[in-house]
Amino acid sequence: MSTAVIRSSSQKNKQYQPYIDAKWGLKNHWYPALFSDELKEGEFKAVTICGEPILLRRENGKLYAIEDRCCHRGVRMSKKPFSFKPCTVTCWYHGFTYNLENGRLDTILAAPNDPLIGNASIKVYPVSEKYTMIFVFVGDADYAPVPPLEHDLPPPLEKEYVNYCKNLTEDGALTVGIHRSGESNWRLAVENGFDPGHVLIHWKSPLVYAHNLAVPLGARPITDKAVSIIESDDGPIGIRNNTVADPDGTWHYDLVLENKELGVKAVGGNPMIGLRTSMWLPGVLRVENFPFQGVNLYEFYVPTHEDKYEYWELMTFDPKDEEDKKRILDQYEHYLKKAVFHEFNDDDLWARDAMQPFYQNGVGFEEEKLGEMDAIIIGWRKLVARHARGIQDAPKELNGSSKC
Amino acid sequence: MSTAVIRSSSQKNKQYQPYIDAKWGLKNHWYPALFSDELKEGEFKAVTICGEPILLRRENGKLYAIEDRCCHRGVRMSKKPFSFKPCTVTCWYHGFTYNLENGRLDTILAAPNDPLIGNASIKVYPVSEKYTMIFVFVGDADYAPVPPLEHDLPPPLEKEYVNYCKNLTEDGALTVGIHRSGESNWRLAVENGFDPGHVLIHWKSPLVYAHNLAVPLGARPITDKAVSIIESDDGPIGIRNNTVADPDGTWHYDLVLENKELGVKAVGGNPMIGLRTSMWLPGVLRVENFPFQGVNLYEFYVPTHEDKYEYWELMTFDPKDEEDKKRILDQYEHYLKKAVFHEFNDDDLWARDAMQPFYQNGVGFEEEKLGEMDAIIIGWRKLVARHARGIQDAPKELNGSSKC
Amino acid sequence: MSTAVIRSSSQKNKQYQPYIDAKWGLKNHWYPALFSDELKEGEFKAVTICGEPILLRRENGKLYAIEDRCCHRGVRMSKKPFSFKPCTVTCWYHGFTYNLENGRLDTILAAPNDPLIGNASIKVYPVSEKYTMIFVFVGDADYAPVPPLEHDLPPPLEKEYVNYCKNLTEDGALTVGIHRSGESNWRLAVENGFDPGHVLIHWKSPLVYAHNLAVPLGARPITDKAVSIIESDDGPIGIRNNTVADPDGTWHYDLVLENKELGVKAVGGNPMIGLRTSMWLPGVLRVENFPFQGVNLYEFYVPTHEDKYEYWELMTFDPKDEEDKKRILDQYEHYLKKAVFHEFNDDDLWARDAMQPFYQNGVGFEEEKLGEMDAIIIGWRKLVARHARGIQDAPKELNGSSKC
Repeated sequence: MSTAVIRSSSQKNKQYQPYIDAKWGLKNHWYPALFSDELKEGEFKAVTICGEPILLRRENGKLYAIEDRCCHRGVRMSKKPFSFKPCTVTCWYHGFTYNLENGRLDTILAAPNDPLIGNASIKVYPVSEKYTMIFVFVGDADYAPVPPLEHDLPPPLEKEYVNYCKNLTEDGALTVGIHRSGESNWRLAVENGFDPGHVLIHWKSPLVYAHNLAVPLGARPITDKAVSIIESDDGPIGIRNNTVADPDGTWHYDLVLENKELGVKAVGGNPMIGLRTSMWLPGVLRVENFPFQGVNLYEFYVPTHEDKYEYWELMTFDPKDEEDKKRILDQYEHYLKKAVFHEFNDDDLWARDAMQPFYQNGVGFEEEKLGEMDAIIIGWRKLVARHARGIQDAPKELNGSSKC
Repeated sequence: MSTAVIRSSSQKNKQYQPYIDAKWGLKNHWYPALFSDELKEGEFKAVTICGEPILLRRENGKLYAIEDRCCHRGVRMSKKPFSFKPCTVTCWYHGFTYNLENGRLDTILAAPNDPLIGNASIKVYPVSEKYTMIFVFVGDADYAPVPPLEHDLPPPLEKEYVNYCKNLTEDGALTVGIHRSGESNWRLAVENGFDPGHVLIHWKSPLVYAHNLAVPLGARPITDKAVSIIESDDGPIGIRNNTVADPDGTWHYDLVLENKELGVKAVGGNPMIGLRTSMWLPGVLRVENFPFQGVNLYEFYVPTHEDKYEYWELMTFDPKDEEDKKRILDQYEHYLKKAVFHEFNDDDLWARDAMQPFYQNGVGFEEEKLGEMDAIIIGWRKLVARHARGIQDAPKELNGSSKC
Repeated sequence: MSTAVIRSSSQKNKQYQPYIDAKWGLKNHWYPALFSDELKEGEFKAVTICGEPILLRRENGKLYAIEDRCCHRGVRMSKKPFSFKPCTVTCWYHGFTYNLENGRLDTILAAPNDPLIGNASIKVYPVSEKYTMIFVFVGDADYAPVPPLEHDLPPPLEKEYVNYCKNLTEDGALTVGIHRSGESNWRLAVENGFDPGHVLIHWKSPLVYAHNLAVPLGARPITDKAVSIIESDDGPIGIRNNTVADPDGTWHYDLVLENKELGVKAVGGNPMIGLRTSMWLPGVLRVENFPFQGVNLYEFYVPTHEDKYEYWELMTFDPKDEEDKKRILDQYEHYLKKAVFHEFNDDDLWARDAMQPFYQNGVGFEEEKLGEMDAIIIGWRKLVARHARGIQDAPKELNGSSKC
């Protein structure tokens, strides 16, 4: 063609096109890979993050994360990983042996003199074990400096804040949780997480009945401080629904307690004091004072595949002493795990999956009709577009379809 | 490229290209969605027609059909439809509430003051409950006037016609049937339905043995009146195999009773008097006087997905009185349903599925070799190309694959 | 565009691009379709080779192979093949009847006077029953002359060769085996077959323990005679690993018995005398003197679909007399079939499947990093590029996706 054909982009796409492109996630960020107790001394385990296959290894107390794909014929080493020598992994197929520190091909079992040795390598990942989890930094091999893990986690609340509760990064925090996979794109999971208008799906949750929780129909922003953007070069980037009153009693959201046209009133009698939701790059939800005061709930939505994410659900408590800790763990194990992480959150899991067909080919981002209540979702999309350290490409194995 | 590359189209494609494009069906036509007794008062039920998700509702005896996709985030409302107010459906996710009459967004449970209210809408469909079925008119939102349902159904036979039997649209008709889904494109199902050369597949049917039915090997057109085209601006459009003699005794088909080269003779001794097949837009088969004299058999092939259709099988009887009606229903329930709709028609279902791989990418339409016996199939394709009120596009969710 | 965009091809692709294009196999070659005893007198059976559906028939002791797709509506005749007349097959749908010798449409059951008769045909395939198998020549209808089957099989070893063992094509050979399907492209299966560096996967095989087989870590070519290319216009085309010493005691491979860096030594005490692997177009492996001296093991990797192949495993023995033959068959049935064809070869099947994701879109061929040990694989790829009689296209049913 001698003249260019330009598809007219809608205005919204111009505002946050990088977000629309981020089907495979944001790169150059930290993501949880496993709980600490899921990788025992001497074990190998495989995970997928942002489409990248990653092999984790704990050896002599140290953690390693390396590309789970042999450079020779591309097989996943995790299918049968060998460890013949400290700090190496040997591929089960031809014995390609990689140094876990730097990914270099150190030897080949079947060919100890091959010229490839020392001249080939696979990717290694920065890894950090903190706050009960093993985190991996997924991004460009030459990205430097690697930012601190804490830049990709919600920051602590101010101690003097009236609804303060302990953050998972703070000393003395007791954090428990589970993870499992969800069948939608990670962005739909994020957007469901802190969406103030989706409470209808939780109305019939046993948790709501059990505690007679006051669940409003919705929340309508009424001042220009309803949503806070937290952005800086030196710290976590996030966005928060200011659903609690200022110290002077000013409210920024109007809770919708009745829809007169439909004759529907909000349920429950016990207000959820201090509940505030916020979302942090690369996709971490914090719900303050939920399911009750003094507890922070977290959710991580880790991109794995274009239509799948790993769903992490955690709660952080602030036990007074060992006795209290025991009581909390007992309550978690026998009640909260099921009531919050399953019964309550299952409704969200289901809702995210329900959006996937509309969004899977990108049509949803063009045809959706967002309302006032979605202001925070638009805010989040723009925030990602401004601050994501990079947009992940589709895995190379999926890229070559037109070539052969 | 500086010069255009033009794929040479075969002659046949020029004759009925719109038909070849109609993978997702014909639009601006009436299709059966459910049997009347499948939608009870107060119920919601979802169907898919021509790739469009449709939510049906019966409320205070009135029927509604509305797009089963919330305009907000694209979810199917049918997963958990709410009805808080007469003549509305509320989406389970954020409470978007649509007027069932006109599809307008009447309110949002979570945001009763949102500016979207009154300014957004989803599609509604004309609906008609007649002849034991609920029909939906699937097409362009602004298509007007909507033609009468009877334009998309076979018309009554003339009362004085010697082989007259009652049409499903006539007073006193007793119509019974089933529907289920078939795994092929709807066009392959249609073309199997009235194809005069496929009788070999029915030879071993228990129905043929039970009644010693005379099944010819085939039927060869011998006059130019073998096939009738029924077309007008004001009524059903169809095509008919004239396999019965004219009043003066003239035959237009030569029944093939023997293939000497193969040493094969037709089976059965009892001729099927008055049997005539015809196909009507948008894809309705009538077989007159089948499985025996006085009964009309109908089949609807409703496009649902590109490789799936809803297969409707019905019979219309003409009971003399209530006693006779009871007898017919008893015979249907305990014999005809299984012998005709399952044992006999299962052979057709299987045959259609068998064509699907060859046709699914359009190759079949280019490479098939049609013979004399397929004259009526060619006739049907041209008829559709001339008279279809529109060709349905692929669903928008499938359209955006290259965009994101 | 007014200027051409040329994707820079890597050097390796230039060397064997036809091989990279051969996803659907090599055409104009002989492939095994069935074991002789899998097709009994009077039977029809269907197979798929290089994406082509083929219907086999044994009638009056003669074998026929014909396209398993009716020219009329494209259905597989094998779903219910009829035989009304000698040397014909009649399609179950409309009775299109083909001559098995030449594929010509001889009659149509339902339309004995149709002008298509005598003017349409489907493909027939040269077929040859030898060496316990039925072979089909898959390729262009007009390819001539069809080469002898033996050009597509490993040739006999020289009688005077010190490690001589009988070839499956020689008089007195006793050949037994199985076939089953594998879930990878046929090229990955071939390349696994004679790869000298993959022995690690067999270390823990019961067969190795049972016979204390000396399995080296690998084999490193040390002279320029390590790999022999056998190519001529008049006979089999192959490539061989010369892993046995010359008569003068010269070795061309250095067996790797230890990897000092990893502290790993080869296992087993009994050397496998005379073991030599070779690969022959279109994809036939011979392993001489395996699992023990005097036995030839063969594997055929028959392309069926782009991500599937038929895996044939055979052994040829040289029984002294009927008594010996009985003993061998007994040993095979109760020991070798399981120990070699399943326990040992299952490890290879698994390894091939593991390569498939990396190679399925062609990315593997661009990104793989081959070493010295892969010299024979590169040699094989170039040999195919030079000598394959043709590269098979994707099946026509898959080709039309953009047309309709």
